[in-house]
Formats: sequence, C-alpha cells, structure tokens
Amino acid sequence: MKDDIVDLRSDTLSRPTPAMLQAMAQAETGDDCFGEDKTVHALEEHVAGLFGKEAALLMPTGTMSNQVALRVLVDRGNEVICDASHHINFFEAAQTADFSGVSLNPVQTQDGVLDVATIQSSIETRARWSHSYAVPKLVWHENTVNGRGGRVVPLATLQQVRDWTAQQGLATYMDGARVWNASVASGVSLAQYGQTATALSVCFAKGLGAPMGSALVGSRDVITQARRWRKWYGGGLHQSGVVAAAALYALRHHLPLLADDHENARHFALGLMDTGCVDVVVPETNIALFDISRLGIEPGRFVSMADWLGVKLLAWRGQVIRAVFCLNTTRKQTLNATTRIASLIERIAARGGVAGAAAAEGAAANWAGVSTP
Amino acid sequence: MKDDIVDLRSDTLSRPTPAMLQAMAQAETGDDCFGEDKTVHALEEHVAGLFGKEAALLMPTGTMSNQVALRVLVDRGNEVICDASHHINFFEAAQTADFSGVSLNPVQTQDGVLDVATIQSSIETRARWSHSYAVPKLVWHENTVNGRGGRVVPLATLQQVRDWTAQQGLATYMDGARVWNASVASGVSLAQYGQTATALSVCFAKGLGAPMGSALVGSRDVITQARRWRKWYGGGLHQSGVVAAAALYALRHHLPLLADDHENARHFALGLMDTGCVDVVVPETNIALFDISRLGIEPGRFVSMADWLGVKLLAWRGQVIRAVFCLNTTRKQTLNATTRIASLIERIAARGGVAGAAAAEGAAANWAGVSTP
Amino acid sequence: MKDDIVDLRSDTLSRPTPAMLQAMAQAETGDDCFGEDKTVHALEEHVAGLFGKEAALLMPTGTMSNQVALRVLVDRGNEVICDASHHINFFEAAQTADFSGVSLNPVQTQDGVLDVATIQSSIETRARWSHSYAVPKLVWHENTVNGRGGRVVPLATLQQVRDWTAQQGLATYMDGARVWNASVASGVSLAQYGQTATALSVCFAKGLGAPMGSALVGSRDVITQARRWRKWYGGGLHQSGVVAAAALYALRHHLPLLADDHENARHFALGLMDTGCVDVVVPETNIALFDISRLGIEPGRFVSMADWLGVKLLAWRGQVIRAVFCLNTTRKQTLNATTRIASLIERIAARGGVAGAAAAEGAAANWAGVSTP
Amino acid sequence: MKDDIVDLRSDTLSRPTPAMLQAMAQAETGDDCFGEDKTVHALEEHVAGLFGKEAALLMPTGTMSNQVALRVLVDRGNEVICDASHHINFFEAAQTADFSGVSLNPVQTQDGVLDVATIQSSIETRARWSHSYAVPKLVWHENTVNGRGGRVVPLATLQQVRDWTAQQGLATYMDGARVWNASVASGVSLAQYGQTATALSVCFAKGLGAPMGSALVGSRDVITQARRWRKWYGGGLHQSGVVAAAALYALRHHLPLLADDHENARHFALGLMDTGCVDVVVPETNIALFDISRLGIEPGRFVSMADWLGVKLLAWRGQVIRAVFCLNTTRKQTLNATTRIASLIERIAARGGVAGAAAAEGAAANWAGVSTP
Repeated sequence: MKDDIVDLRSDTLSRPTPAMLQAMAQAETGDDCFGEDKTVHALEEHVAGLFGKEAALLMPTGTMSNQVALRVLVDRGNEVICDASHHINFFEAAQTADFSGVSLNPVQTQDGVLDVATIQSSIETRARWSHSYAVPKLVWHENTVNGRGGRVVPLATLQQVRDWTAQQGLATYMDGARVWNASVASGVSLAQYGQTATALSVCFAKGLGAPMGSALVGSRDVITQARRWRKWYGGGLHQSGVVAAAALYALRHHLPLLADDHENARHFALGLMDTGCVDVVVPETNIALFDISRLGIEPGRFVSMADWLGVKLLAWRGQVIRAVFCLNTTRKQTLNATTRIASLIERIAARGGVAGAAAAEGAAANWAGVSTP
Repeated sequence: MKDDIVDLRSDTLSRPTPAMLQAMAQAETGDDCFGEDKTVHALEEHVAGLFGKEAALLMPTGTMSNQVALRVLVDRGNEVICDASHHINFFEAAQTADFSGVSLNPVQTQDGVLDVATIQSSIETRARWSHSYAVPKLVWHENTVNGRGGRVVPLATLQQVRDWTAQQGLATYMDGARVWNASVASGVSLAQYGQTATALSVCFAKGLGAPMGSALVGSRDVITQARRWRKWYGGGLHQSGVVAAAALYALRHHLPLLADDHENARHFALGLMDTGCVDVVVPETNIALFDISRLGIEPGRFVSMADWLGVKLLAWRGQVIRAVFCLNTTRKQTLNATTRIASLIERIAARGGVAGAAAAEGAAANWAGVSTP
Repeated sequence: MKDDIVDLRSDTLSRPTPAMLQAMAQAETGDDCFGEDKTVHALEEHVAGLFGKEAALLMPTGTMSNQVALRVLVDRGNEVICDASHHINFFEAAQTADFSGVSLNPVQTQDGVLDVATIQSSIETRARWSHSYAVPKLVWHENTVNGRGGRVVPLATLQQVRDWTAQQGLATYMDGARVWNASVASGVSLAQYGQTATALSVCFAKGLGAPMGSALVGSRDVITQARRWRKWYGGGLHQSGVVAAAALYALRHHLPLLADDHENARHFALGLMDTGCVDVVVPETNIALFDISRLGIEPGRFVSMADWLGVKLLAWRGQVIRAVFCLNTTRKQTLNATTRIASLIERIAARGGVAGAAAAEGAAANWAGVSTP
Repeated sequence: MKDDIVDLRSDTLSRPTPAMLQAMAQAETGDDCFGEDKTVHALEEHVAGLFGKEAALLMPTGTMSNQVALRVLVDRGNEVICDASHHINFFEAAQTADFSGVSLNPVQTQDGVLDVATIQSSIETRARWSHSYAVPKLVWHENTVNGRGGRVVPLATLQQVRDWTAQQGLATYMDGARVWNASVASGVSLAQYGQTATALSVCFAKGLGAPMGSALVGSRDVITQARRWRKWYGGGLHQSGVVAAAALYALRHHLPLLADDHENARHFALGLMDTGCVDVVVPETNIALFDISRLGIEPGRFVSMADWLGVKLLAWRGQVIRAVFCLNTTRKQTLNATTRIASLIERIAARGGVAGAAAAEGAAANWAGVSTP
C-alpha cells in the first residue's frame, strides 16, 4: 500500500538520488567561509554563466536569496512592487518588514505577471507624496508563478519591464525558484531570462532534486555585497561543497527531465477537467491548481480523502488545491493518481455537496482501511 | 486680493486663535519628562475621560501616536489589517515596516470601512500557513476615513468588529485623528467610540485648531508602555503644558464648532455636484472629495487654476481633488469658494477637455493677474 | 517653605519666562508640514547661520535630532564610535539598535572626550574582520559631556578628529545639546564648533529655557534627508512657529546668561569640595557631579535627605550625584543650596557611615517636617 | 611540500571524513519543512537528550542559532549582557542591532567569563533609568571562550549565574559552539552544562568535523518559536537529513577525539612559551593564542612568514595570533608546526625587531621557494 502513495504536495519533496548522493560524498571541499571550497566555486561560476551574469552565490535556501537580495537592491524606506500571490508577499511579508524594513506594494493581478501598465498605475500616485511614502525602487517578478499554477512569465513582458524600469531608475528582480521549469517549458534560454533582471534567485531543491540550496545571481558588485549579508543571516556554511555537488549534479542530469514533470502535471489537470466538476488551470509547467468550490466541501476534508486514496495534495488558498510534479513521481504514478482523484471528485459531485462528501469519505476511508471520526 | 484666499488644502492648516494663544501663555507648566506638568496631566485625564478609558498620553503628532500604538499592541512578525486608503498604509507604510517590523495587510474596500466579513476573508487563508505568515493581531479603523471623504464608520460595524476580534484574540485600534468630526456628525458619543477600540489616537491640530499635538488613549497598561516608546521615538517633551493648554482650550471652545465645517463642506460639495461635470462624494463631515476625470484635465493643472482664483485645493490621488473645511474658513468664504470652483468646472466642461482647460486657464490667470507659461 | 526649594535635578526643568511666552503667543505661524511657517524658517536660518552651516531643522526633542542624524549619516550595519557615557549610549542604546539598526562602539574614556588615538585603537582590529563586522562610519562627540560634569571638548581635539576622520572617510557628529554652554565657557564660537562636525544637534529646552525643541544642523543635503525622516519619527509638527518663537527668544535673551549658571555650578562644587568628604569634579560649565562613596550611604537616601532640606538633586550613576544650574536658580538660591548640602555632607561624615546617615536623616526630616519611615 | 602544510587557522576547516560522507549518502531523508526528515528528528532528539533539554533544532550555522535565540529569548528594547570578546559582540554586533533590535551591553573581562558580580555591576545603574534604557533580559555565556584561548567557563560560575538570574527574572544563554571541548576538557557533562542555560547552541562544523550545521537546544516552547524564526532567517532546509547524518556520525565517532586536539594545542603553546619571546596563554582546550608584541613585527607579516614555512595561522586581534587544533591535524604535524613556529620566533627575536623580521622573512621565503616583495 505504501509504495502506492503518490505525494504531490510539493516539488521540495524531491529526494536526492543515490547517484547524486555519491556525487556529494566525492566532492572536493574546503571552508567556504575562507573562500576555499572549489566545488562551491565551480557551481557559482557555472550558474552565473548559465544566466549570463558575472557572479553567483550559494545560499542555504531561496528565502535567504530573496531576503539578501532585498538588502542589496533596496534600502529602508523603499518599496518593492510585487504581485500579492508571490512568495515574497504570500510567505515572506513578515520578515521583509521586520528584517529589511522594506514595504511591499502587493498588486492584485489575475496571473501573477507584472507588466508595465500595472506597475505604472501602482506607483504613480505615490510619487505625489514622496516626502512621506516609501520610494518605489524594485519590481519583483516570480517565474514561474507558483500561486498561479506555475505560470511562465512571457519574455516580452520581462523585457518591456526591464526597459521601462531602467528609464525610471528602478531595479528588477526575478524570484526564479522554478525558472528552470520556465525555460524548459518556453524554450527561452536561462541567459535570456538573466538579461531581464538586475539579479535573480534560483533553487536547486525543487524540481532539480537537490536536498537543499539556492543561488543568488547578479553582477560582481551585487554578489560581493550579498556575501556579507549572507553571513549576517546565518548562511555562511563551511564545507558546502557537499551541497554544491548536489546542485551541479542536478543541473547536469535533472534539468532535461523537467519536461516529463510538465507532461505529468498537464495529464493530471486534464483528467480532473474531464470530470467537469472542478475548475482547473491547465498548467504550463509542473504545478496543477484546481478549485473545488463547486463540490461544496472543505479543502481540508478533500485533502484527507485524497490522502486515504494514497494521493497527497495540498490545500493552497481559499478553495484551491495544489498538485506538484517532480522526479519523485513517475508517469505510471501520475496515471494512477489522476484516476483516483478524478473518481473521488465525481463521486462527491454525484451525490452533491455534504451528502456526496460523506459518502465519498466513507468509500475512501474504507479503501484506506481507516475509520472516519 | 490676498484676504480673499480660501485655503481648503487641509484642516491641519487651522491656525491657533488669539484666545488659544493666551491660554497657552498662561498655562501652568513643569517638566513632563519628570511627570510634573499639571496642564499635561489635566489634558490627559480629560481626554481619557471623554473616551471612557483609563489613561491618555500627549504626543507631538498623530503619526507618533499611531507608530507607538503599533509598538504596544502588536509585535514583530504580526500583521495589521487595515484599509489601503488609511493613513497608516497610505502615508505610514514605510516606517511601519522599518521601525515597527510589522506587516500591513491592506484590504481594498469601497468606503474605507472594515467590517467583520472583510476582515475574516482577509485573514482566513493566512491562518493555514501560520508557521510562515505574519500572525494577524490587530484590526485598524480610521474614523473618519480621510481618503474616503471623511466618512463616519458606523457604530454598529465597530461594535461587531470589536466582538468578533475579542473572540479571535485580536485587538482593535482607531486612528481617530478626526473622531471629533465623527462624533459631532453622527451623534455617537466619544465614549461609545472608545468602547469599540483597545486603544485609539486623536489629533488636536486638525479641526480643533491647536498648533500641534495628539493623544493616545487606552488602558493604564497600554499608556505605561506607550510612555516608554514615546521617549524612544523622540516625543518626550519638557514644558509641554503649553501644548496641552491649546488642546484643552480647543476641546472646550472649538469642538462644538465642527458642525459648521460639516455644513460648509456639504454646501461646497453640492455646489460642485450641481455642475453635473464632476463626481462628488457628498461629505458626512468636513472633507469634500471630487473626481475630475470627466473634465479631461490634469489634477495639478486644475489645482493651479483654482489657486489663481484664490481657492487652494489639494490633488489627492488619481483624479481626485480634496477640499477640507475647518475654523479657518467662514460661511461667506465657503460660498465664494463654491461659486468660483463650480464656475471653473463649468467653464472647462463647456469647451471640453484640453481646449476648455486652456480657455479656463487663461481666464483664471487673467483674473489672478498672472501670466500662463 | 516651598519658595525655598532649589531644584537642581536638570536644566530641562528651566521654565519659560512670561516674556518668552508672550513671544510665543505673538509668533506668526503657518503649517510647517506645508513648509509655510515663517517663524520656523527664521529660526532654522538663524541657527544654521550661527554654526556656519547651510541649513537647520526644528525637532521636537534632542533625541529625535540624534536618531534622525543616525539615519542620515550612517546605514544599517554601520558602527558609531562614541563614549560610553554619552547620551546616545547611556540613554539611547535601545532605540539606536531597534530603530536605526546601527551598532554603537562605546569606548570607555575618563572624560568623555574622543581623541584620534582613542578612536583609532577602537576600530583598527575591526577592519581586519570587515566581512563580518559593522563598518565604522561615524565618530560621535557630545559637547558638553553631560555624564562627565559638563566638560567642554577642546577645540583642538575636535579639529584633529575632523581632519583624521576626513582622511578615513568617516563622518563626525556633535550632540550639542549644551554646546551653548561650551561656547560661553570656552570662548570658542559656535561657528568654530560647527566646522568640526558633519552635522550637529542643539537643544533649546535646557539652559536656554525654551519649553521644548531642538534643531539638527548641517548641509542642505543632510537637512533635506532629515526632513523626510523627521516625518517618519512623528516629528512633523504643524504651527510650530510657537515653538520656534520660544527658541528665537531664548537665543536672543538667554544665551549670555549661561555664564551665571556656570558660576553658580562652580560655587556649589567648591562649597562641597571644602567639606573634604566627597569627590567633586570642578565644573567647567553648569553641571556639578560629586561622588558620595566616602559617605557610606546610598545615593537614593542622600537625595531624599537633600530633598527634605529643600534641595532637589539627581542620583546619576553609581555613587555619583548630579546638580545642574540654569535660569531657574538665582545666585542667592545657589548660596543657600550650597550651604545646606555642604552641611548635610559634614553631618553625615561627622558620625561616619550609617550612623551618621541616620542622624543626619533625622535632622533633615525634622527640618522638613516629615516623619522618616 | 603541500602535504606538509599544517593549517591551524580554524577548526571550522575540519574536513568531513570518507566514513562521515558515506553516512551522509546513506541517510534516510524527507522534507524537514514538512517535518518529515527522520534523520533530522533523530539528531534533534539525540542532542536534546545530551543536554537534558526537551528539544533541539537543526540550524545551518551557529550564527543563525544565536540570532534566532535572541528572537526567542529577548524582545526589542531589551539588553543582553555579554563579554566584549564573545562572538555575539565581536562578530555579530551588526546583525544583532539590525535584525533583532537588541542592544548588547558588552562587559570587558579578562577571561571572557561573566560571574554574578560582573553582571550585577553592569546593570545596576541601568535599572535607575529604566524608562529610557534597554531592559536587561539575558546573560550570554560563551563556552569555551574563543577569544580568550578556548577557556572553559567554570561550572560553579554558570550555576551561580543561573541562580541569580532566575531570582532577577533574567534568562541565560550559552553559545556552546565549542561546548564539546569544554565538556571533554573539564569532565563536566553536557547535561550539567545544559542545566545552567535557558537555551544553548552547539556547532557540528568545528572540532566535530561535520561539513556544516548547528543546533539550538532548549524547552519545547523555545524550540517551537525558534522553528518559525528559522524559516524567516532562511534556514528552513529540505532533505537536511544529509546534514543531520554528518552530525550524528560526528557525535558518535569524533567527540572522544577532541582530547587529542587539546593535547596538541597544549604542546604547541608550551613549545612557543619555551622560546621566552612571546606571551602565551596555555590552552585548556584546542585554541592557542599568543601575543607577538615583544617581537616588534606586524601580525600580518608574521602570519605570512609562518605561511611560507607551511604553517597557516590567523592574526586574531591586536598583536594576538591564533592557532586552532582539530582532527585535520595529527600529532606528528603538531610537532612539526611547533618546531617551525618556535624557530621562526627565535630567529626574529634573535636579531630584534624589524631587522630580525627581515632576516627571518628572507629565510622563510627562501625555504618556501617564494620571492619576497
């Protein structure tokens, strides 16, 4: 039964493979706090090169990359324009205020994509009160947009924003935790993305499958400043070559595999859409979001039932459920999970609302061998 | 010509009267940093009593009252639910992040009034991610709502929010810079308002006409903590009895006069509405907002023309212009200002857009004896 | 009996005179938040001129001047070198950390005066660890040094520090709350002091006798930035011409009177020294410090006894008692206070330690008509 | 030649052994952000048990442990009493101010050990000004004291401080980065140390030889709060079982080996002391400090010469040089390094000051095959 479980809660669950672990065990290391870890250097140079930037810096997590970027790119009393769904607002609002003293201007967009018109309208009134207001200094992209189903931000939009912000004296940043997925899905090269942002972050621990690690990428000056802040945040690791080795392995061996995850996510989403009972965003990359409002059932309850059926999902926000695909999940598991969840949805819908839910719950629990409260 | 000028930019422009200035000059003072200024004590006790609270604390400004309240009522990593138009977000977002380390959750409402349903929906998803999110701790009211034309927040709403937040373990705060106007307009007593908020701030330097000064009002415990923070913010004045005397004079002599300001604002707004060419919010208190979008003219240009006609207005946000009435402006001046601005609007509208604007501009400049560029 | 009381706790207790209060009542005012208060402008220009600087900014308190100066002159992660006794460390350490994110490097000197050698030795090791450390950016003077008995910082020292810091790329600041006293005592002009600091603060509410108010003085650029921060700290007053008028009056009429305060402080100190039973720093300005260690009595108890004798003193730190002289205290009162305190000291010393204290206490209480516990 | 290099700069240079790396590669992992990494759980339980505490939390670095501890144990406006040499002051003063808003009260002691008398005298005056001052809340120990040559803090002192602080309502913290060394050297158990601190941190990446990682140890409540802050600092790793496996391996296999390092450090120090030309603190654990003031040579120059002789040292502060011993350095290498450095010292001293230095430099450079500038 346990082998049967398909865990779609997050791509951060991606497990290091035995080959990756051996690469880690054989890495040449040194103390990176003394600047002496050659594997870290190799990773940082490689990543910088991929994005056509001068330098990169290994970080323990994407959160630290983002927070350190705020320190380097903006100052206290500055304002960052982002989408309300972005990780920086959705998850990091508290420390952005508390640590960086920076205020977010979270715009409400449909798809999490900030274009010039949106940015412009969000800051024009503010300029009139500049003696009081926070001064807008940075436009924040997230690519892909997690909270909008792994949406790929169009290259043309990124380029227009870059051109406009350059004229206005603003910087741009890309939270590229899943920029790998964006590149694979859109065919836009990482270097092209790199040209649209003053600095960007990437994550090795999501679809790429490394156990941990992120990088901040930018000019030599940005990275020199970031190195100091990283120490302050408690991110100055020692023999971090072991982490860097995993990232290097992932970039070499796992990057091309992301296309499979996208196909799986798409298959899953279409399967759910076929039920006609939930609202599905057809994914461009590896994240499927579906809204269960029409089922008349609590997200937490739906997730429990799915769990009993051996499929782990995440209640995202409101009535939206999230399923994420990564190298943990094979094509066959995807087919199984799709069938199980689609059938669960149909069963709930068949009887309508609470009654249907109760019946489905009974069936699911029965199947799982657990007793409902 | 100069006597003719009617300045409607803000009620912070209210000038101390000669009688108020004499009250200040005759005040008994002491060093309030040693807790020895009797006039300050008298004011603080009086204000606390008005709101049915245990204690009050004289502050140099309403901004300091608000910022110190944040320190006392919430902690780092906490979230404050407010309306996007509120002063705390519109003007104080930067220092709220930078000084207090608190994140705002600015809700977009039509009228700046936060009711239980709005608050509930703004925080429910957040609870699901409480290990990451800022924890909601405080609901922020503004009464009257400046950015929504001095709207009075209904007592019933305030009471429902208080009851609901009490159940949830949240505190409530009222930025009552113009709560005097709310009370005079609605007939709700200050004490009734006081019962709906854990703490609140008031301002003596707006409609009441004192040269400066605000107070924070709350429980003895809140005020004891606030006294310490006030010193940290640089608000520990010495012989502040001179300021307190002005506030006491204002509460005694100017509070009942606010009704005149409300009537003036209403007259002005209705006069502009009669033109049929601008969108006007009929004011409940002393602030008239009107939207000039239909005139097809820049707010800054409109304000300049009004200026030439001897009426000072403020370009608020977007296409909205603000006119505020206080004891500086007599009934007669109100009638004059209304006539002048209504006629300016009609003139611009008559010819339509830019052409009309240019013609009106010429006329206004001619009248003012200035030459247009 | 009450008329007899001589209050030497602080010069912040200085009361506004009737003439000063009338000057306040007759001041021409406007809303300084709109930059329209002519009396404020007059004060700011006058003060800037006194120190040979481009601009000045009226502040509610010296604490706000100091804190805003930190915002303008240094950044997060920077370090300020000061003496441990300075107000910025002794009283403002908490908000310096919390609000400004700046770390103090408080040096322990004998006299509160920072010379080049002291500064140099306090920062040289730090440079070696610059990737971790706060970066030294500002040298902080206090003139006069309150915690060291109103000591005047020698002009030559200030000039040498200015020259050395200029070479090193550091800024200098003078907390000149009592720089008026320094100038009167040393004959060094305010303009000469002004030349030794990037920016400085002054206070109108100490020896000068205004009810409140301070100013930050510096280049036009520093003051422009400071104006924005002042609003953030809650120091943007409205008709602050009333405060400015008091300061202008004080500068015109009270500045020359400070020499009397210095003479009084000196008389008092010498009188206590004559007892041979306490350690006295002969004051250069208006602050007398004496150490009662040899009396074998708690500072709080000594202060209570003095209080019963009609002389209010302040237990400063450790065993040190502070007496400050300002326009509240006449020559005759000074003579009386000196006699009473000297005699109290002798009485305690006569019988030695606790027994002497108890006896003196009884006598003092008897004289005051109070009963000891 | 390269094999010959003995690197004594830091024990953070300790390299993971092949066996440790294999333990890492074979660790059972999960996503610790979902609380599902069993190896992390095993480590946290093991460490908590060692110190007799309820819980522990894996951290990327000791800096993050320290900073997060500040968040949990103290609040803004609080003060932490530490020694000036402690890591929290020497290296972390900037982020302590900037991130935590906490002010340090760095006491100057001879040996970095805070006893009750020292603490008491450092805070007694402050209490008198509590309305202004930061409020003392936490006593900070470092054990062993790095900046004082790995000094072990006596258990009795720790116990007395714990008892006194408990009465006063203060908490205590131990920066136990090298508490392993303290325990091995003194025979005091980790559990005994654990009983003297409200919370403490340990480091796996120093003498224990793990590539990275630290843990915060305390009550369940402290650790629950710390988990949230860790995420905010960017320390929420994913498959961190790989890191935990290294720490577990180190605790099992490397902890007993620390005694060898202590012996090596002692041998090295005694060897240098025998020259009679430098001032040496005989180490209690693995850190040898020696002061080269009497040699009349710049620390940086001395370190360069040692480097040419194949011994890497660190210029610590002032004229003090640091040598640290860990599992990287064998007994034989220690003997060699001692001979080389002792002979270098003698050579410099023989000719005296600069001349001796130049001669020694020539010899060392010659030996190393490099040319001096």
